[in-house]
Amino acid sequence: MAFGWIDEQAEARRRAGLVRTLRPRPAESALLDLASNDYLGLAHHPEVTEGAVRAARTWGGGSTGSRLVTGTTELHTELERELAAFCGFEAALVFSSGYAANLAAVTTLGPHGSLIVSDAGNHASLIDGCRLARGERQVVGHADPEAVRKALATHQGPAIAVSDTVFSVDGDRAPLAGLAEACREHGAGLVVDDAHGLGVLGDGGRGAPYAAGLSGAEDVVVTATLSKSLGSQGGVVLGPARVIDHLVNAARTFIFDTGLAPAAAGAALAALRLLVREPERAARARAVAADLHARLTAAGLEAVRPDAAVVSVRAPSPEQAVRWAADCRTAGLAVGCFRPPSVPDGISRLRLTARADLSGAEIERAVRVIGETRP
Amino acid sequence: MAFGWIDEQAEARRRAGLVRTLRPRPAESALLDLASNDYLGLAHHPEVTEGAVRAARTWGGGSTGSRLVTGTTELHTELERELAAFCGFEAALVFSSGYAANLAAVTTLGPHGSLIVSDAGNHASLIDGCRLARGERQVVGHADPEAVRKALATHQGPAIAVSDTVFSVDGDRAPLAGLAEACREHGAGLVVDDAHGLGVLGDGGRGAPYAAGLSGAEDVVVTATLSKSLGSQGGVVLGPARVIDHLVNAARTFIFDTGLAPAAAGAALAALRLLVREPERAARARAVAADLHARLTAAGLEAVRPDAAVVSVRAPSPEQAVRWAADCRTAGLAVGCFRPPSVPDGISRLRLTARADLSGAEIERAVRVIGETRP
Repeated sequence: MAFGWIDEQAEARRRAGLVRTLRPRPAESALLDLASNDYLGLAHHPEVTEGAVRAARTWGGGSTGSRLVTGTTELHTELERELAAFCGFEAALVFSSGYAANLAAVTTLGPHGSLIVSDAGNHASLIDGCRLARGERQVVGHADPEAVRKALATHQGPAIAVSDTVFSVDGDRAPLAGLAEACREHGAGLVVDDAHGLGVLGDGGRGAPYAAGLSGAEDVVVTATLSKSLGSQGGVVLGPARVIDHLVNAARTFIFDTGLAPAAAGAALAALRLLVREPERAARARAVAADLHARLTAAGLEAVRPDAAVVSVRAPSPEQAVRWAADCRTAGLAVGCFRPPSVPDGISRLRLTARADLSGAEIERAVRVIGETRP
Repeated sequence: MAFGWIDEQAEARRRAGLVRTLRPRPAESALLDLASNDYLGLAHHPEVTEGAVRAARTWGGGSTGSRLVTGTTELHTELERELAAFCGFEAALVFSSGYAANLAAVTTLGPHGSLIVSDAGNHASLIDGCRLARGERQVVGHADPEAVRKALATHQGPAIAVSDTVFSVDGDRAPLAGLAEACREHGAGLVVDDAHGLGVLGDGGRGAPYAAGLSGAEDVVVTATLSKSLGSQGGVVLGPARVIDHLVNAARTFIFDTGLAPAAAGAALAALRLLVREPERAARARAVAADLHARLTAAGLEAVRPDAAVVSVRAPSPEQAVRWAADCRTAGLAVGCFRPPSVPDGISRLRLTARADLSGAEIERAVRVIGETRP
């Protein structure tokens, strides 16, 4: 039977306690959400949902084609212009997902004959970008500018270093200044994924590269998602105009994909404008994360100090992590549960997100539930 | 300078006349649209846009996380259930794009030690899926079941054949029955991308696999987009429940991507229900394509006989194709222009889409403009 081999893998997953199942959620959930990436609590903000509504009514349910054919509306251009201005880059290009944006950036900036130096903790989409790129890939230790420097020294010709700015599993921040310095010494480009930084880090949420003084640099390219702090869907690449033009001409996940749906572009644009108007939301997300971490630590839990809005709590084993998350859920709290093979180091954890709109009472309740259910 | 090498490539593109630029369109265009993939004309249908509106208001601007964490709403499940039922498969899984769905299907069904036999005319997303997959890839001639049979005969162990059902460039149909027979002789799976078949081919638009009697087969997996006939955004994989469960557990573009935005799921679901209620839309798209082809041929143009809703017209060169499309635009007609490197065979063409809602007068006008502007 053609797909019979799948049953063996399914059985192996069952034995290892690693079966994943979908758990559809209702529109109104009684759960306290510390699991989503809705860092600023904007996904349900009326201005954001009405941004989606207006866009769907004005521009239609879909963009109807590739961005190069009929899929670029004036709404896409408006969003790109405002994202570039907000983050301090010359130009921006919007994709149907952050995954597609990362594949685009790494494949087009890591061509044949180039070197791509990739952090060992990078997100799956950056890793897949490296695997699809024609350049040679070298994986270096996590958050180690010196290792990047050494790798770049081995190569002649175009080179890039690729890193998340905030790593999604532990919520730790990349040493961006050190990475930029290592790249500049060798004339290499720096490509960073600010999915978990945009809206949280930097002045008013302008992102980790902005905070590191790298915005607008001619040798820095930033990718990000519209689906986390901006409460929508999609991805973006920000950088020098020459890089964005290159992507328009060469990025397969841009050329051969349908453009982002108008509703998603409209929701992201509304969220961006809200963030421009209410810059304190970013600082609030960071403060909630710090508070959450302090309280978890005080309760004797092993939590990683957050650099952004992700707080990671270690679990003893994949099975116990799953049970812990399930017990939290029973007690009314939704938390993320990361375990192999989704974690680079094999360590299972609960992953908590510090939404800007969590109240003190909600934070307290979350910490109490996590403490009471610990394995 | 880090990205200085890009300028040379840009210059080479300029010299070759292959520069691509974005052309943002307004909400209300005076152009007659034969360029989009909105085959049934549903992207602006009020039921579809109101499907997006209701979903955004009920479920928020984004799905807020991975489908495995917070990104699966009951709306996603509803859409998956109805898509599976409509196309005649046991289960379905929705992605943020068709590109992501294809990467998922090919990488998870072409594991290490397997053989992936890929049609030379396949879409970029299937090709990238093959490149990302751990299995061995063998590219065979276009639409050639005998070549697939020979390739499969060389291999022991899991194998799949991968093909578009309708090829996006020329609009020609894959020999699905022959491919399925070749696969079955060797116990291989058949993975086909019905992006341009869903909504157009098969009873009431149930797709090319349905038309070929392959729906629901335990050795057939179908991918499709929600962004063409369904007027929205997103992709879907349809197949046996064991395959869909496998994707939930193993597909990186599922696990590490934010779930499809509610508005896109809502728009696609509304379009699907409309198609169930008005199955004649599919036949109408095919009739428009046949009419378009007959009139173009009568006007002495070299057009490929359409198997679905795409009508391809040969152009003498990339430069002339670009000028032809531009001249059509000046005359009020939007047509697609495919040229290297987006075409597998290096032949440039105008690509026309036969929307179900084109009137006889509009078809006549389109053919007149194309004839009058021919190089």
